[in-house]
Amino acid sequence: MPIRKANPEPPFNIIRASHVAFDVSDLDRSRAFYVDCLGYLISDADSNAIYLRAVEERNHHSIVLLKADNAAVPVIGFKVSSEEDLDRAAFWFAHKEYPTSFPERPYQGRTLCTCDMFGMPLEFYYRMDQRNCMLRNYAEYKCARIQRIDHINCFTPDVQASFDFCSELGFWLTEYTETDGGNSQLWAVWMHRKGNVHELAFTNGRGPRLHHIGVWTASALDILYICDVMDSSGFVANMERGPGRHGISNAFFLCVRDPDNHRVELFTSDYLTVDPDHEPLRWSLRDPQRQTLWGHQAPASWFEEGSFFSDVRPRQPVLQEQPIVAR
Amino acid sequence: MPIRKANPEPPFNIIRASHVAFDVSDLDRSRAFYVDCLGYLISDADSNAIYLRAVEERNHHSIVLLKADNAAVPVIGFKVSSEEDLDRAAFWFAHKEYPTSFPERPYQGRTLCTCDMFGMPLEFYYRMDQRNCMLRNYAEYKCARIQRIDHINCFTPDVQASFDFCSELGFWLTEYTETDGGNSQLWAVWMHRKGNVHELAFTNGRGPRLHHIGVWTASALDILYICDVMDSSGFVANMERGPGRHGISNAFFLCVRDPDNHRVELFTSDYLTVDPDHEPLRWSLRDPQRQTLWGHQAPASWFEEGSFFSDVRPRQPVLQEQPIVAR
Amino acid sequence: MPIRKANPEPPFNIIRASHVAFDVSDLDRSRAFYVDCLGYLISDADSNAIYLRAVEERNHHSIVLLKADNAAVPVIGFKVSSEEDLDRAAFWFAHKEYPTSFPERPYQGRTLCTCDMFGMPLEFYYRMDQRNCMLRNYAEYKCARIQRIDHINCFTPDVQASFDFCSELGFWLTEYTETDGGNSQLWAVWMHRKGNVHELAFTNGRGPRLHHIGVWTASALDILYICDVMDSSGFVANMERGPGRHGISNAFFLCVRDPDNHRVELFTSDYLTVDPDHEPLRWSLRDPQRQTLWGHQAPASWFEEGSFFSDVRPRQPVLQEQPIVAR
Amino acid sequence: MPIRKANPEPPFNIIRASHVAFDVSDLDRSRAFYVDCLGYLISDADSNAIYLRAVEERNHHSIVLLKADNAAVPVIGFKVSSEEDLDRAAFWFAHKEYPTSFPERPYQGRTLCTCDMFGMPLEFYYRMDQRNCMLRNYAEYKCARIQRIDHINCFTPDVQASFDFCSELGFWLTEYTETDGGNSQLWAVWMHRKGNVHELAFTNGRGPRLHHIGVWTASALDILYICDVMDSSGFVANMERGPGRHGISNAFFLCVRDPDNHRVELFTSDYLTVDPDHEPLRWSLRDPQRQTLWGHQAPASWFEEGSFFSDVRPRQPVLQEQPIVAR
Repeated sequence: MPIRKANPEPPFNIIRASHVAFDVSDLDRSRAFYVDCLGYLISDADSNAIYLRAVEERNHHSIVLLKADNAAVPVIGFKVSSEEDLDRAAFWFAHKEYPTSFPERPYQGRTLCTCDMFGMPLEFYYRMDQRNCMLRNYAEYKCARIQRIDHINCFTPDVQASFDFCSELGFWLTEYTETDGGNSQLWAVWMHRKGNVHELAFTNGRGPRLHHIGVWTASALDILYICDVMDSSGFVANMERGPGRHGISNAFFLCVRDPDNHRVELFTSDYLTVDPDHEPLRWSLRDPQRQTLWGHQAPASWFEEGSFFSDVRPRQPVLQEQPIVAR
Repeated sequence: MPIRKANPEPPFNIIRASHVAFDVSDLDRSRAFYVDCLGYLISDADSNAIYLRAVEERNHHSIVLLKADNAAVPVIGFKVSSEEDLDRAAFWFAHKEYPTSFPERPYQGRTLCTCDMFGMPLEFYYRMDQRNCMLRNYAEYKCARIQRIDHINCFTPDVQASFDFCSELGFWLTEYTETDGGNSQLWAVWMHRKGNVHELAFTNGRGPRLHHIGVWTASALDILYICDVMDSSGFVANMERGPGRHGISNAFFLCVRDPDNHRVELFTSDYLTVDPDHEPLRWSLRDPQRQTLWGHQAPASWFEEGSFFSDVRPRQPVLQEQPIVAR
Repeated sequence: MPIRKANPEPPFNIIRASHVAFDVSDLDRSRAFYVDCLGYLISDADSNAIYLRAVEERNHHSIVLLKADNAAVPVIGFKVSSEEDLDRAAFWFAHKEYPTSFPERPYQGRTLCTCDMFGMPLEFYYRMDQRNCMLRNYAEYKCARIQRIDHINCFTPDVQASFDFCSELGFWLTEYTETDGGNSQLWAVWMHRKGNVHELAFTNGRGPRLHHIGVWTASALDILYICDVMDSSGFVANMERGPGRHGISNAFFLCVRDPDNHRVELFTSDYLTVDPDHEPLRWSLRDPQRQTLWGHQAPASWFEEGSFFSDVRPRQPVLQEQPIVAR
Repeated sequence: MPIRKANPEPPFNIIRASHVAFDVSDLDRSRAFYVDCLGYLISDADSNAIYLRAVEERNHHSIVLLKADNAAVPVIGFKVSSEEDLDRAAFWFAHKEYPTSFPERPYQGRTLCTCDMFGMPLEFYYRMDQRNCMLRNYAEYKCARIQRIDHINCFTPDVQASFDFCSELGFWLTEYTETDGGNSQLWAVWMHRKGNVHELAFTNGRGPRLHHIGVWTASALDILYICDVMDSSGFVANMERGPGRHGISNAFFLCVRDPDNHRVELFTSDYLTVDPDHEPLRWSLRDPQRQTLWGHQAPASWFEEGSFFSDVRPRQPVLQEQPIVAR
């Protein structure tokens, strides 16, 4: 399978994965999870929404919790390089006949709302309100000591299509999984803009759906500690997978589910990918080290469950291959 | 179930769990596991035996690998307080009509060989050859950076009987598991002499068999690192359980199997138990936190597999209760 | 210098270092330090006293803060093995013509108050009120995640005399510092009862004075974290020495001063010393690795400053040798 | 002091700090330091040179040790985005009348050699031979487990001039130190291309001289471990500063000197700086937290000593202010 290179002259400049909004059915319960258990800081909150940031973040929010009847993901957000890039983005999406709009977003500057070819809701912005960086205020660190949002991982019904779309927007491939045999096909891709393993990843599956957001901690011991805390906070059943070491990305990770089953991956120690001649790393779908270096197979829920995007009906995937699943 | 207190005036003074001998079928393969992968130091070796110690240990050996046709455990060893204690021990066991002998043991002083009521082979000694403590020679630390032997864990066909035997010898109970209901019975016990959670533990099962030896590391990160090393050393399939946090003992642990399936538990961060009024901690057999605080159920092999003691035929256990096992 | 062995038949059985009382000039300020910054749990408090324990401790208190006009140390406390041991202790001290009394101590059972030959105030008890062990309640861990009291370190005007006194009471020597040359003399001693490096240490200096109490954490990373927290809590000036690695005891440590200049050492990763044939480790006073393996010389305050025991006038030390001090 | 923004349209595209060459007086001694003690991998070596890379690095070398009569730094190297960028760089430097040449560099593609206005030797290249990434080969990790080069830090006689030069080349400012008062002047600057705190930093001092190279580890515990190893490897005197937490960059660090006194900083846990509206952080030269959050003042050698660039005579700095130095 020839791997398409990132567009060296993308139509507009995406800086990084920035934030996600979660529709949640009980704000208090979600607050207990994100704030009291994981240790997120509240930038603003009212009876309908809670805006969260992690200790390193100056941007007003990287997670927005929105009171709703049903769990869903209204949007995933990316920061672009300037207001002009927003206009270029609006032009490009409109030219490709994707829907575009500029709704009001609290605490954000001009925000372009659009989607990909499967209807996955995307928003782009340049300016967001700034809050104090708490990175050096260690007395304010709580629980998991999460530093910042790192990446967004989605199911797509067609990995090749999602990959081509993102390549054109300038995302660089760092690692990928293929089926084996003469006519190998993409099973999953990891793509970045900011210089580490990923901003955005796609895995073959019923989609579009959000698989997880990944959030960065400074040390594996922070992740071990949150395992202990989740137990004594009553969230032990929310621990879905890990802690362990991914083969992919080399990251030490823990995957947890929030009270609405939105998945959050705590994540640390991947690597630098800024070199333009950095060769993507290929994994066979049959390689057991792909999922984890430590031999722990992922549970079936990892391959099957994800969050629906608001008002987007997922499609069946084009590939029917089976990854290795824990019995 | 009334818990019998440790005998305050035991017939002889046991200091601690000291060593174990493993019959192994391929010395080179075992050396690759214990020395190259786990990082044990070789105190002495010849074509029939390898004597191993960890970085803190001054005693000549805490693990002895013996070339043999079949995997087995010839003996588990305990250090006593003096030569006089050895004589008192010999008298006590002989008086109780257990077999006693004083065979030659390389690198050990006078050594009493005997057994418990199920035939589990025990040896006691006071003097062992001393080697340099490498605790401050950090450049010699390898891989798992194991500091010392911590404990020995066995299956017994009758936990109450094994517990009574050890209580009489002065072992203190720190934690125990009981069946629930009106006529609760002991399922497992953890007992110490040296002041932490255990020297010796017993679990209900076909026995006597060795379940595992536990070895101490200074930090949970040492245990995470050995997980990574085992993978790249070709021993990923030898990782059986963990890393994780036991509810019992509060220890952070990883369980691995050596090339003959003898089980070694890397273990850190339990607690101090020297107070004479330290109350034992009760766990219900049905409490899922007993096995692990993080919700990872133990695999069936954990409950079923163990090392045979040389020439000792295990018996069926008196209790037929079932613990919680990963599906 | 011939090293006297611990008395194998001590007059009474001391279990371990148990607690210390600190006279402090401002309870609120001390609470901010011990509770808000270090993370101690409050077992009880009123307008005149705060009783503190760490997360592992079941005993009601290991630090007692007492409102007073001046900073001082009213007493250091040790747990004995039984009520009978208390009576044997009272007999022994009275027989040696030390003052003895049994005052009321809140939350403690019968408590013997006495002193050593230099007037250092000692108390012994067997029973103390018990509180819940919070070791597995990780959501309650704060800041330094201190687990328990580990040891007490004092200046003495005559190390040989203090050593002889403690040896007779059954303390075992683990490490010691001597002057060099033909007529070497003891400069410092580390002695244990509970099986690690020390319960009680003495250093040559104007004394008796308390040098520090040592408290145990599970990991060096806990100690790094409290360094970060002390800064952002406004206590950066209270960090006196470290973090670093002691040659003596091999411990990773950080020494901090409380608002009244009482010194607390956070401490982890020493080693097991229960073997009766464990040979004490000798250090030369001139060995720079004695203080730290990492080449950081101790500040002058480390050798000069300590807490006065209430109403005890320190004497000049018998040795006038100089250790290595940071310029 | 108005802070000049990075040139949004730099004359050529620098990717990141890539490598440094060190003239060393004894290759064997340097090999003992970099390979046996720090754990660097050898990509190639002969009797005149050793090419080193860290475990994450695919590029052939990030440190080149060259046998020489005297310690010096022949060059610091940066990777650019393409061969065309090299040509653009050559044009720009020639146009500004800096010397330019394209000498042969082993294991590198076309390499442009030039310098800044103070004669600091720079080289730029796009292609370098690739070697296997050892990031997932944990059994090959040794000692400090250094992952990759992170940054280069230099003394300059005129921080404002060096800053303006680098801003024009597209380096972004992340943190800076100023003198206080009405006419504040730049004392030090930290500038990046790759998205963390820095590629290149300048401090006021006799220069140009190399202050240090910074190398990345995955965890603070890796840095603690190398402290222990340096002692037992005989390099304790080579530990100059730390471990500690910089206020600047928030990094956990340790500074060591190689056998020729070239300085290497082990470094972890800074933060993401890719946002174009990321505001630089200002520090006052008088702020003690600037150097370290933990109150450890830097030794005088930190402010005074650096490596000479080959055949470049340093000048006196334009600012004569004094930072805070340990007495």
